[in-house]
Amino acid sequence: MSTGKEILALNAFDRSEVSAMDASLRNAVERRLRSFGAASVLFYQAPLRMERAEGVWMFDAEGRRYLDLYNNVPSVGHSHPHVVEAIRRQAGLLNTHTRYLNEVVDGYAERLLATFPPAIDHLVLTCTGSEANDLALRIARVATGNAGFIVTETAYHGNTAAVTDVSPSSRPGQPLPSHVRVIPAPDLFRAPDGDLGQRFAAAVGRAIADLESCGIGFAGLLVDTIFSSDGVYADPAGFLAPAAELVRDRKGLFIADEVQPGFGRTGAALWGFARHGVVPDIVTMGKPMGNGFPMGGVAARAALLDRFAANVKYFNTFGGNPVAAAAGLAVLDVIKDEGLIDNARILGGYLMDRLREIGNRHIGDVRGAGLFIGIEVVRDRDSKEPAPEIASFLINRLRHRGVLIGAAGRYGNTLKIRPPLCFSKDHVNIFIAACDEVLREIGPA
Amino acid sequence: MSTGKEILALNAFDRSEVSAMDASLRNAVERRLRSFGAASVLFYQAPLRMERAEGVWMFDAEGRRYLDLYNNVPSVGHSHPHVVEAIRRQAGLLNTHTRYLNEVVDGYAERLLATFPPAIDHLVLTCTGSEANDLALRIARVATGNAGFIVTETAYHGNTAAVTDVSPSSRPGQPLPSHVRVIPAPDLFRAPDGDLGQRFAAAVGRAIADLESCGIGFAGLLVDTIFSSDGVYADPAGFLAPAAELVRDRKGLFIADEVQPGFGRTGAALWGFARHGVVPDIVTMGKPMGNGFPMGGVAARAALLDRFAANVKYFNTFGGNPVAAAAGLAVLDVIKDEGLIDNARILGGYLMDRLREIGNRHIGDVRGAGLFIGIEVVRDRDSKEPAPEIASFLINRLRHRGVLIGAAGRYGNTLKIRPPLCFSKDHVNIFIAACDEVLREIGPA
Repeated sequence: MSTGKEILALNAFDRSEVSAMDASLRNAVERRLRSFGAASVLFYQAPLRMERAEGVWMFDAEGRRYLDLYNNVPSVGHSHPHVVEAIRRQAGLLNTHTRYLNEVVDGYAERLLATFPPAIDHLVLTCTGSEANDLALRIARVATGNAGFIVTETAYHGNTAAVTDVSPSSRPGQPLPSHVRVIPAPDLFRAPDGDLGQRFAAAVGRAIADLESCGIGFAGLLVDTIFSSDGVYADPAGFLAPAAELVRDRKGLFIADEVQPGFGRTGAALWGFARHGVVPDIVTMGKPMGNGFPMGGVAARAALLDRFAANVKYFNTFGGNPVAAAAGLAVLDVIKDEGLIDNARILGGYLMDRLREIGNRHIGDVRGAGLFIGIEVVRDRDSKEPAPEIASFLINRLRHRGVLIGAAGRYGNTLKIRPPLCFSKDHVNIFIAACDEVLREIGPA
Repeated sequence: MSTGKEILALNAFDRSEVSAMDASLRNAVERRLRSFGAASVLFYQAPLRMERAEGVWMFDAEGRRYLDLYNNVPSVGHSHPHVVEAIRRQAGLLNTHTRYLNEVVDGYAERLLATFPPAIDHLVLTCTGSEANDLALRIARVATGNAGFIVTETAYHGNTAAVTDVSPSSRPGQPLPSHVRVIPAPDLFRAPDGDLGQRFAAAVGRAIADLESCGIGFAGLLVDTIFSSDGVYADPAGFLAPAAELVRDRKGLFIADEVQPGFGRTGAALWGFARHGVVPDIVTMGKPMGNGFPMGGVAARAALLDRFAANVKYFNTFGGNPVAAAAGLAVLDVIKDEGLIDNARILGGYLMDRLREIGNRHIGDVRGAGLFIGIEVVRDRDSKEPAPEIASFLINRLRHRGVLIGAAGRYGNTLKIRPPLCFSKDHVNIFIAACDEVLREIGPA
């Protein structure tokens, strides 16, 4: 079985291969390493030199184009002109903090809050999803007076010290912090029996009991509502409801991390939690919120933020700046005007159907919601044995055929498919043809 | 004496005053509170509705202009056309993460690293100064194997959970976390005797001993090199050197927080630590780095980042995106092309001279470096008794005269003066005249 360390390295560039590169790429990689060193993370055995991007296409320094099914940040399409123009206009007008009143900022806040159930009525704007989750943990600690959090076993929630503590996928091989418990991902592929909702809730219940047996009070359950880094688990819609109810019964908070599923990607609604018929106590947002402009946010019940503000002075210098607000408004415009939620649902369904039609023995499972899709790559469908090396081969071969995807999951064998939401049938067909060809390279279907 | 809580509230809007506002402002404030609630922070007894800004001027919704001596983020001037154009151009071309190679990103990294002493040779780009300081703490913990940090008593280093632990000004009335020790600010005004450098180093030495007596190993000293939230302490240049040397002797790391003094504001060099003749182990950056575009960074010795990367998987989605890099390059261009470091030195000197000439009994001390200036407001110069209520009166009266400043310091009585670096003599003269008039309102000089 792969460890978390191997999973994260799955699609990563390996610096022992630099010497085998052509001179131009080698120079570019060496340049990167001179400035960013060991802390730098590059994709692919042969890293890409990206130069421009438009819609669903990215172009490298040689002008070669790549169909993007990986990047979930430029969610309404790379370099979308409406977003670019909104950024340009506001950057030339005013870019300041929220200690002044500003029409654009207050307008964005109202527009964003209107997308949530009425109980979620207040907002803090941050710059990143990591800052949002860091703040959510603090809010939950103050609200409950407790420190114990439950997350899934391959969860990723961001990069701050506190958020890394609740991100097992960032801490391969390290023991869990004493205030954190993990539960299995809601996996119907490898454990198809029983009621998933009840099973997931029971695991949460056991984790609460375990925290309490160690004298650690339960503060909250934090889940990415599409379970992206766990390997993408979406169905059956509604499976989160029993766990959310249990969390409330046990006086904890249910924190929905919408950094990845949010802003329409799941094709059912703007927010991933909506598919599950639950209302979170706290919602965190990030990545696609500004289509690349750095922004994030925490939406929560007013009482939770009031209690937090009474205890702690919090201010975020760049959070909610008018340029971010303008970008955020433009993103909401485009999602609505271009019908991107419907498109995500329709094209996601088409993409999953086409993938299943390929019928290759290495495609163990195709799952997801809207344009957030996971393909579990296995040695063969009967054994279900995870095949991360085949997943890695697929990712790198697809890159050479001009198609960008990624990997995730406990075993590192789940392909992550998250194209811009303006994807079309033609784009799906290009991807399917490339997949089919690469799978044929591996061997008979 | 004021508490930290009172200090932070000094320049803050008080929601009990809403009912006394004119209808238009009241509506705008109530609108803000409906979305952001208790967690929102507004400046001034009568909050400002900002609409646009250019250079050193900000304009409110009624078109009234304000001379900005507060905002240290739009450091090369509000809405600077060179920065706006760089953002527009790159946002329309490519905005992605650093897992691809990109000419703009690698060019920026090289240009930024060239501004540091050679020992500081590697970089991690983040989105905010908070993320940068959060990461710096983690790097220091991994490098030293220790958890103990020393900061000044009214320090502010950012808003994440881990950084709030080392930001006493954000935690008014709360006991310090067990791994944090505070030392007095390097204050020559209230404690003029002896050698400041030796005194500051001795306090660091005592704090290290105290940590170790509690079984907590020493990880590092984290200081804002202009001590902004402590009340702005700049002189004598070089006073940080003995403390930095002691920190090295004791195998800790010296972390220079350049989020506020960095990018030329101190008028001596691009970095605040340069005035002190020290080379930090880690430097953190933020606020003015993109003139408002959200960006931050950590620069450090390669060995420190290598060791961190070997232990922890760190990735920052928006950190070092090409639009941020383009904004960062434009900021470095403008600082150089417009001679802003020299301007900060010359105009800062002129501003301090003019302030001292006012000779009012409430101006206890004028201090700073370049265009980072503190004015300590006292009841009278002989008693040196802090007068935060006079500072607050000055801030609010200056706002009504169209001049923006802020406050800081242990007693909340130090006016913070941090105008855009393109400030001119005429701007200084406008500020001095307004100060003079408001001081006369208070009483005889």
